[in-house]
Order: sequence, then structure tokens, then C-alpha cells
Amino acid sequence: MFDMRLHHVAYVVPDLDAALPDFTGRFGMTEVVREVMDAQGVEALMMRAGDGFVELIRPLDPEGPIARFLETRGGGLHHVAYAVNDIARTLHGLAEQGVELIDPEPRVGLGGHLVAFIHPRSGHGALTELVQEAH
Amino acid sequence: MFDMRLHHVAYVVPDLDAALPDFTGRFGMTEVVREVMDAQGVEALMMRAGDGFVELIRPLDPEGPIARFLETRGGGLHHVAYAVNDIARTLHGLAEQGVELIDPEPRVGLGGHLVAFIHPRSGHGALTELVQEAH
Repeated sequence: MFDMRLHHVAYVVPDLDAALPDFTGRFGMTEVVREVMDAQGVEALMMRAGDGFVELIRPLDPEGPIARFLETRGGGLHHVAYAVNDIARTLHGLAEQGVELIDPEPRVGLGGHLVAFIHPRSGHGALTELVQEAH
Repeated sequence: MFDMRLHHVAYVVPDLDAALPDFTGRFGMTEVVREVMDAQGVEALMMRAGDGFVELIRPLDPEGPIARFLETRGGGLHHVAYAVNDIARTLHGLAEQGVELIDPEPRVGLGGHLVAFIHPRSGHGALTELVQEAH
């Protein structure tokens, strides 16, 4: 059994700067990190929202999956992320149980955290991220 | 400005009992409440997942919005919820700012919490719930 704690939800938006004031000024969240992530073809930012976080993602690559999500869904909730203590061990354990992993090994994600994605087919229809926080 | 903290994400699933072991046995979450909600035409349960919660919803009313969501999307992430201290005051303040509310006044939701929904058009594409916890 793995100890998964709700870590963040991520929205796809067309424009980070246009969306940001709703989450910070209106909803009282605090931006903690913002990065261009070339390998993913996105720019993303993370905000603290109480004990959890909220991520905003915009596409940079017009042919990438985030651009396609924005086109087909018009934005909205993109994934949910759970924090784990040992992401490599968790991934290996999940794979042994037949869980379909998009990233069989962790990679460095937004904010320097180790992250890996689980396929929605193994996530009850939700694209699911695991996060091992870099403290 | 409102102090919104990430509270839970909700999934629509066809069968609560079939989905539950993945979240509890595999992911280490703990079921805290389960209710048939006749007015919403659903059965729902909430699990603790660290500092936050995860909700599972299944349709009871085959003509209702949750059944339609399951049909069109095949399940998955349904909404995101943020905890607030004073939900009535928050709703009135959001309405004054032109935010489109599905529930202009709070109602009693799962676990006895006061809840209200914001329309996805005012939630960056995400159906958004506010929760004032009943302690």
C-alpha cells in the first residue's frame, strides 16, 4: 500500500497572466514557482492553496498534447497529483500491480520535484501524477 | 480576496465498490463518509488523502448530469473543491465580481458540509465547489 496525499490539481489555460489574478487576487493563492518546460512544450506555474497547490499550464508547442487539450476541451482540469514519499519505489510497486505508467521512471518536473504520470486508463479516467517533493 | 484552500477532487465512477480498493487498499486513502444524496441523484463517498480529500461519485438517476458525464466522458475528474471560512460571504463577494454561481446560496452537501458550485465558465473550465467544513 502507498501513502498518497492530495498534492495539486492542474488546469490548462490559454494565458497564464490572464488567468493568474483570478487565482491569486480573487482566490487568495500565492504563486510559488513558474517555469518554461521546453521538453514538455509548456509554461507552467504553481500556486499554494492552503495545504495543497494549484498548477496552471499553457501550451508553447502548438502541436503538443496541452495545445490539443485546450483545443478539444477548451481548457479546464488537466490532471490530479498525489504526493508520495518514495516515487521510484511507488512506481515499481504500481507497475507490478499492472498499473499503466506513462513515466516508468521519475523525471524532474515543475519546481524541481520528482514526478511521474499514470495513464488515465489506470487512474479511473483521470490523468494522475505522482510527486516526490524536492525540499 | 478570499482564502481558498485545496479541499478535494471528485471523480465520477460507474461503481463505488469496484473503485474503492484502488484508492484505499492501493493508494492508502481512508474512507470517512458515504451517503446516498437523493436530491442530486447520486451516491458519493469521501476519502482522506493526506491533508486533502478525494470524492467518488456514482449516478443513481440515469437521466441526471452525473450519468451524462459518465456516458460522454467515461468518468474521470468531475470537479475541484476549495475550502473557505465563510461560504455565504464568499458567494456574495464572488457574485458581486460577476462570477457565475450555480448555487447562489450554500446548501448541505456530503458529510454535512455547506457547499456551493461555481459554473465552469467562471472556473477556468473546471466545475468548482466551495466547501465550508462542518466541524
